[in-house]
Formats: sequence, C-alpha cells, structure tokens
Amino acid sequence: MYDQTLFAHCAVQICQVGRFLFDRGWCPATSGNYSMRLDEQHIAITVSSVPKGELTEEDVMVVDLRGQAVGSNKKPSAETLLHTMMYVRDPQIQSVLHSHSVNGSVLSKYYLSQGYIEFDDYEILKALHGVSSHSHRQAMPIFPNTQDMNELAEWVEHYLHKSPAIHGYLIAGHGLYTWGYSLADARRHIESCEFLLECELHRLHLGAFTRPIKQ
Amino acid sequence: MYDQTLFAHCAVQICQVGRFLFDRGWCPATSGNYSMRLDEQHIAITVSSVPKGELTEEDVMVVDLRGQAVGSNKKPSAETLLHTMMYVRDPQIQSVLHSHSVNGSVLSKYYLSQGYIEFDDYEILKALHGVSSHSHRQAMPIFPNTQDMNELAEWVEHYLHKSPAIHGYLIAGHGLYTWGYSLADARRHIESCEFLLECELHRLHLGAFTRPIKQ
Amino acid sequence: MYDQTLFAHCAVQICQVGRFLFDRGWCPATSGNYSMRLDEQHIAITVSSVPKGELTEEDVMVVDLRGQAVGSNKKPSAETLLHTMMYVRDPQIQSVLHSHSVNGSVLSKYYLSQGYIEFDDYEILKALHGVSSHSHRQAMPIFPNTQDMNELAEWVEHYLHKSPAIHGYLIAGHGLYTWGYSLADARRHIESCEFLLECELHRLHLGAFTRPIKQ
Amino acid sequence: MYDQTLFAHCAVQICQVGRFLFDRGWCPATSGNYSMRLDEQHIAITVSSVPKGELTEEDVMVVDLRGQAVGSNKKPSAETLLHTMMYVRDPQIQSVLHSHSVNGSVLSKYYLSQGYIEFDDYEILKALHGVSSHSHRQAMPIFPNTQDMNELAEWVEHYLHKSPAIHGYLIAGHGLYTWGYSLADARRHIESCEFLLECELHRLHLGAFTRPIKQ
Repeated sequence: MYDQTLFAHCAVQICQVGRFLFDRGWCPATSGNYSMRLDEQHIAITVSSVPKGELTEEDVMVVDLRGQAVGSNKKPSAETLLHTMMYVRDPQIQSVLHSHSVNGSVLSKYYLSQGYIEFDDYEILKALHGVSSHSHRQAMPIFPNTQDMNELAEWVEHYLHKSPAIHGYLIAGHGLYTWGYSLADARRHIESCEFLLECELHRLHLGAFTRPIKQ
Repeated sequence: MYDQTLFAHCAVQICQVGRFLFDRGWCPATSGNYSMRLDEQHIAITVSSVPKGELTEEDVMVVDLRGQAVGSNKKPSAETLLHTMMYVRDPQIQSVLHSHSVNGSVLSKYYLSQGYIEFDDYEILKALHGVSSHSHRQAMPIFPNTQDMNELAEWVEHYLHKSPAIHGYLIAGHGLYTWGYSLADARRHIESCEFLLECELHRLHLGAFTRPIKQ
Repeated sequence: MYDQTLFAHCAVQICQVGRFLFDRGWCPATSGNYSMRLDEQHIAITVSSVPKGELTEEDVMVVDLRGQAVGSNKKPSAETLLHTMMYVRDPQIQSVLHSHSVNGSVLSKYYLSQGYIEFDDYEILKALHGVSSHSHRQAMPIFPNTQDMNELAEWVEHYLHKSPAIHGYLIAGHGLYTWGYSLADARRHIESCEFLLECELHRLHLGAFTRPIKQ
Repeated sequence: MYDQTLFAHCAVQICQVGRFLFDRGWCPATSGNYSMRLDEQHIAITVSSVPKGELTEEDVMVVDLRGQAVGSNKKPSAETLLHTMMYVRDPQIQSVLHSHSVNGSVLSKYYLSQGYIEFDDYEILKALHGVSSHSHRQAMPIFPNTQDMNELAEWVEHYLHKSPAIHGYLIAGHGLYTWGYSLADARRHIESCEFLLECELHRLHLGAFTRPIKQ
C-alpha cells in the first residue's frame, strides 16, 4: 500500500497547483487534471469532472500504474492513462500536469497537419529542464484528439521512444501535457509552454519575426 | 408560497456565481442576470441594475413563472422573461445564467446575418451536458437584439421547439444565455461557451484552422 | 468651508474606485485621476503622481472649482481643470473619473483625425445614463493631447456646448474622461466605455461586422 | 559590510515588487530578477531560479558591485552583472528591475534587426523620469540575446555611453530591463514600458495610427 501521510501531503499540493492554473485561465469548466507520484506503484490524481478552481483534498484519489482506483471507489480523471504511462516510462518523473488553455486549443488545431510547433531563441526555453541556452530549438508535438486513451497513450509512447527530449505535447483542440522531476518542475514547464504558445500566437498575427517595413 | 430557507440558500449561491462571472470580465457595469428554480412556480432572480461583482442577497428576489415579483416590490431584471420561459419549457432546468462578454458581443454581431456559430473538434464540448466526445458539432444560435422581451422569448421558444439540443444562445451585441440541470451545470456551460467564443475569435484572426505555409 | 465628514467619506470611496480601476489595468504607473463633489464650491480629488492601486485617504485632497488647493498644501492632479470644468458646467454632476487604458490610448490615436468613435447596436449602451435601448448611436469625441489644460478644457467646453449628450470623451494617446450624477454612475460609464472600446478594437481586427465568407 | 536592517527592509520590498510583477504576468516560471542598492558597495538581489510570485526574504541575497555573493553562499541571479553595471555607472540608481513579458519577448524579436522601438505621443511617457510632455520621442534599444553576461553588459554600457537618456532596454526574446532613482521609480518605469509595448503591439495589428477608411 501507499504512504497515507505522503498522499495527504500531495493532495494539498495538487489542490494548490489546481487553483494556480485555474487562476491563469488554463483549466476552465472542469478541464485539467494533475497527478503526483507516491511511490513505484501509486500516484495521486484528481478525480473526474470537478472545477479546478475549487479543488479540495476530497477531489484527489490514488490509482495504481494501470490507472485502477486504490482504496476508494471514486472515478479518476478520464485521461488517467496519459498520466500513468509517463510514470511507467520514466521512474524519475514525479508529476504530470494537463492544462487546457485557449491558446493551446487554438494552436494545436492550427498546426495539427504539421504535427508540431517549434520554438527557438526564447530565453524562457531555459526554464525547461536540461536546457541551458535560449539558442535551442524545442519541438512540441501535436497528436490528434481521440476519446480512446489507449490509442492516444500509444501515439505518445511511440513518439517519446523516438524523441525523448521533449517536455510536453499538445492534443489537438484539447491542450497541453507536461511533466517533471518534481511538481515545481512540471508547473514551471506549464508556465513556460503556455508563455511560448502565447508568443507563437502573436508571431502568427504579426506575420513573422522580421524587420518591419519602415514607416 | 415558496420555501424561505431554500430561497436564502439560492440567494447566496447566486451572489457567488455573480462574483465568479464578474471576476472573469463577463458581466461589466450592471450587465448579467442569474436565476435558480425554487419550485414549480417560483424562481430566485437578480434584481435590475446592480453591479454583479458586489451582489448581496438583498439583490436577489423571487418571481413567479410569469415574471411577477412575489413577496417584494423590488424590480426584477429586465430580461426576466428569458429566464422564466426556460423554466416553463423544461421542468428539469434548475438555473439560467446570462453573461455579457466582449467576445460574445463582438461575435454575435459578426455572425448575426449567418444566424449561428458552429463549433466542432474541441475537447471542451464534452463539458456540455450530454456531449461525450470532442467529435461533435454544436450550434450556438444568434438572435437579433430587441428591447421587446416577449418577441425575443418567442424567437427563442420557436428555435428550441425545432432544435432542442442546444446549451446556449447569443443575442446580437448583447451576450450569452445558458442553462442547466443545476447551477454548477449552468456555470460550466458559461465557462465552456465563453472558452469556445474566445477560440473562435482567434480562429478568425488566424484565417482558418489549416496548415500554415512553411516558413 | 466644506464638510469634513463628507470629505472623509468621499476619500474612502475614491480610494475604492481607484483600486477597482487599477485592478482592471486601466490606470497603470501613476495614471488616472478621480474626483467627487463635496458641495457647490468644493470637490475631493486625487493628488498628483500616486500609484492608483495603493491609494490611501492621504492621497485625496480638496480643491475649489478653480482647482486651487483648500486646507492643504498638497498638489492636485495635473488634470484638475478637466474635473472642475465639469462640476462648473453641470451642478448635477457628482463625480468625474479618468481611466488610462491601453485600448483607450490606442483607439484615440487611431481615430484622432476622424475626431470621434461611434458605437451603436450594443446592449451595454443602456448602461449610459439616459439611454434606454441598444438601438442608439453614441459618439465619443477625441481631442488632441496637450499639456495646456486651459486649452484642453476649452475644447471640451466648446464641444459640450454644441453636443451635450455625451457621457465621456477621449484625449489622444491619453485616455478616457467620464462623469455621472453619482460615483456609481461615473464608474458604470467607465466600465461601459472601456467595454465598447475593447469591442471596437476587435471589430477593427475582424475587418467589419459583416457575414463572413462561408468556409 | 552592509547595513543588515536596511537589507531586511529592502528584501521585504523586493518580495512585494516581485509579487506585483508576477500578478501582471510579467515574470512567469522563474523569470525576472530585481535588485536594490544598499550602499556604494552592495546591492540586494534575488537569487537564481525561484518563482517570483512566491518570493520570500530568503530568496534575496547581498552581492558586491562585481556580482560576488557577500555573507552567504546562495547563487545570485544569472543576470546579476546587468544589475551591477547600472549601479556602477550611476551612483544615483537605487533599483534595477527585469520583467519577462510575452509582449516584450515578441516585440524584441520582431524589431531586433531595427535595433530599437520608438514611442511618441503617449501621455504615459510622462511617467518616465525627466519626461514632462507626451510630445516626446523615446527610444527603447534592443540587444541580441546571449548567455555571455559580460558581452551583454558591454553592449549596454556602450549604448548608454552614447545615449544615456533611456529608461530601459530590451533583450531579444528575453525581456525588459529598467531602473530608477528609487524602487517606486523603477516599478513605474516597468509599468510604463510594458504599457507602451502593449500599445505598440496593437498599433502593428491595426496597420498604423492613421484615419481608417470610412466604412
């Protein structure tokens, strides 16, 4: 079994991060889901269909790495498999977070046929784990949306197998998944990725990052 | 008569939802109006012309389903008929909410001649009652604005008679009406619809959701 | 002399409205200035050069209708004359408020050569005192900016003499002045005018309010 | 050595300004860094890599004017040299602040080849120290981004030697540096510069500040 004290501690932190992300407008309605690793077999994750700005510890539950509820009959987030697959893949991952912003929804639809967005020459890239210079080209892959989580998890798994050096991915018309070696890492990755998405939207509106015609 | 304790309880919840919607910028000045069902004959509704960020229980009153004040001489919202018609139509409806956002005002004017906005392939569509996949086409009808509430209520009634599967409608240059089988449902519908409207505005700015020309 | 208790009361209300407007991003740096009438001869007004999100009653002072400090050696807002002229013009005016938003700055520069912005077919127009239908055409005049307050006050005076039915005006690259028969009226006018300015900016981005080409 | 009481006082103020700037979205993830002068030899500065919305006094440390830690083994901000060079240059400077906004990132990339952005005819220019009229042309230079702080500091130094009358500069894809003769001055400069950047972004979207074609 899992450590009850650790679970209680994680539940508090998950509620805090939920309010933080909701306040930024990144998890409207009942969107968004968040998890933290408890041990090699268990994670704490938000239950399905609750407003994230009003999360309480009652809205956090334990599942095993197959996504099955442990010690409760609550219903975990519909996208639990997208969390567990990351914890299975990489034993160092301590947290997985999903935001559901307007910018992420719009850009993931816009770039779906291209399959990715690329960012470079942004100082904020240094906030991504392991990146030490703005002079870095970072891809953010985009997967089509589906209600079949097994299929989606397979696509992500397949992509990560070939290209492990990413910090997040988009699901078209749906939003962003990020992770980290701590909750703070994962939250910083959301903030950085959402910043980059907002920059990209402006870049598209401006046409390109080039010298404007002299007025 | 209605249940006074229930009314007091609903008044508190209406004030909370008012502050929530005002904080998002969706009910500026004294715009917005909100109601909850008390029983088969009565609803609690906001009074006319108060700032929604500072609602107190004194700003909530009771009206019957013809929109007549019950037990007070306060003046109900000018758009009370748009609330009562929904409660009359569908005995399951427990709440009707109206937001008055910039995006709703702008897009309802932009699409008025078309008469509706359509959304599809958004995960947030699943936040609408009864929708279980992003792969769903949702229409949001737009009615011309008028100060004649009887006329407006008739248009809405007529539309709903033919096309009951909607979760909200726009009035041109005015804003959004949504409802739900609970206050939480109705609020989630507002959050989802306002999210979709913001996405649509971005989509229009980007030209379309297509693969951009390679740069 | 003026009523000290009334002044203390007004100072509290002015601080509240300052924080309200600052929280919306409409008075950055030390911009913005606010006043309330005390009596036929005196108004309470914010002092010069203080951040409006941190206003305290110490930052509010009394001036007479020529803009001269009364009972203190504080320095009133540089734009005091734009307040006093309104109180002199119309004995019913109880409050004058100035917001300094990005949208107001941008649109007042954009439309300066035209000299005004016009709004119609917006429900929010009903929040302007005396307007009872969305079907109403409201002009918002734009004056060039100048550091000569006498000159600016004269332009406004001259305009109002010919066209008294306005609720606010813009100064190019500077922002919005509104007023009202109560502080609540004046604040509601700011919220309505800023709402309309934001709508207008979207309208310009969309090209026009017309039916889009079917995609 | 430095004055401990003064340091404690400055640390509190730096935390406050950090929360203020974070709340405006100008320092996401762990971006942003802030300093205040303690005396001729020492400054208080934020440590490296902390979220600026949750700054505590423990996150502020002392460095000398060469950027070396004094009395602690904490690691100062990676951009400490961009702070110290300003304090060395001008003994009157009491504070240096760096914001990392989306608008600053986007516009600094857009205008990099031009090397500067110019602002004129904005009332908010008067919030910049020493500017007394909107009728003032203010340049904001843009430097390429680099991880070599010595190189970057040299570029800034070289620019300031020729053109001392600026209140801030941009680093491409990175953000804004401002300073002031007090912390209040420096914060007001950030608010003013970020306001101007947002206006400029709108100006670019509108095409230009000219009379629109009559519709």
